[in-house]
Amino acid sequence: MHGYQKDAEDLLNRLRKVEGQVRGIQKMIQEDRYCVDILTQFSSIKSALAKIELALLESHTRGCVVDAIQGGGGDEKIDELMHVIRASMKG
Amino acid sequence: MHGYQKDAEDLLNRLRKVEGQVRGIQKMIQEDRYCVDILTQFSSIKSALAKIELALLESHTRGCVVDAIQGGGGDEKIDELMHVIRASMKG
Amino acid sequence: MHGYQKDAEDLLNRLRKVEGQVRGIQKMIQEDRYCVDILTQFSSIKSALAKIELALLESHTRGCVVDAIQGGGGDEKIDELMHVIRASMKG
Amino acid sequence: MHGYQKDAEDLLNRLRKVEGQVRGIQKMIQEDRYCVDILTQFSSIKSALAKIELALLESHTRGCVVDAIQGGGGDEKIDELMHVIRASMKG
Repeated sequence: MHGYQKDAEDLLNRLRKVEGQVRGIQKMIQEDRYCVDILTQFSSIKSALAKIELALLESHTRGCVVDAIQGGGGDEKIDELMHVIRASMKG
Repeated sequence: MHGYQKDAEDLLNRLRKVEGQVRGIQKMIQEDRYCVDILTQFSSIKSALAKIELALLESHTRGCVVDAIQGGGGDEKIDELMHVIRASMKG
Repeated sequence: MHGYQKDAEDLLNRLRKVEGQVRGIQKMIQEDRYCVDILTQFSSIKSALAKIELALLESHTRGCVVDAIQGGGGDEKIDELMHVIRASMKG
Repeated sequence: MHGYQKDAEDLLNRLRKVEGQVRGIQKMIQEDRYCVDILTQFSSIKSALAKIELALLESHTRGCVVDAIQGGGGDEKIDELMHVIRASMKG
């Protein structure tokens, strides 16, 4: 079981909310709503996604990465972690 | 009718794809998939959202903003545009 | 004369401050300061640069872009503007 | 001695280059250069800064954070690391 499972219900609720916000934007487009009102929604979605991503990154670091380092084989996990952080910052 | 309506079908398809990706992350969490495989999905979603946001921003600029400037009342529209760009960059 | 010239002194002061912050990081490295204290400086520099960039983008939009649209030839200027915004968001 | 010291010369060279780029923007403003040519420089500076930041973050993780975890006291270091990553992503 992975480290994030203890927060799985919270993560799923937040992802369902993001899913609802993405559907909300579709509805706004179908209703021909004002462009700026639609654009405003994106900041809220991006901010919510970034927080979920950071929560997963944190539980991954505190779980899998720490376990691997304590088990003497952390190098590969840190390569992987840095790769994820690099990709996320480019995002 | 707003400027983005000529691309509405394309925008809706891309948003449905993002919605599916957000649901895909929920499924990965329910299946206890490896954290890094889940994290990798976020870059793809953020990149897709940023492209949709830019498409809306562009049609808004070419439509509403240009119309307002040509009609002699562009100041307010540019205030609003800069506000949206500022919020988006803080993302 | 370009639109940003009316704020040139303010922009130059802010850029000199950023330049000083970048030199400050070099000094911290030479003094073998704690990594996290160095990393903290980057957020401040990135935030200062983003604000200067937005100020230039705003004066460009209110100046060159509006002038081109009112002169009937805004399409090329908007292509260019969207290109700059796209590059900045990827940044 | 901190982990980044083995790359200190490379980091300093890259920071000197960024410093030169920031001075270059000041010169462009003083020469009243075209706004878009100035704006284009920001992406390059932001990208260079992000790479230096990631290099420091990586050597910090491989050095101080791994040492602390192996010494049994990693919790505080990971709190600090997550704080730095969170601040960096906010840009």
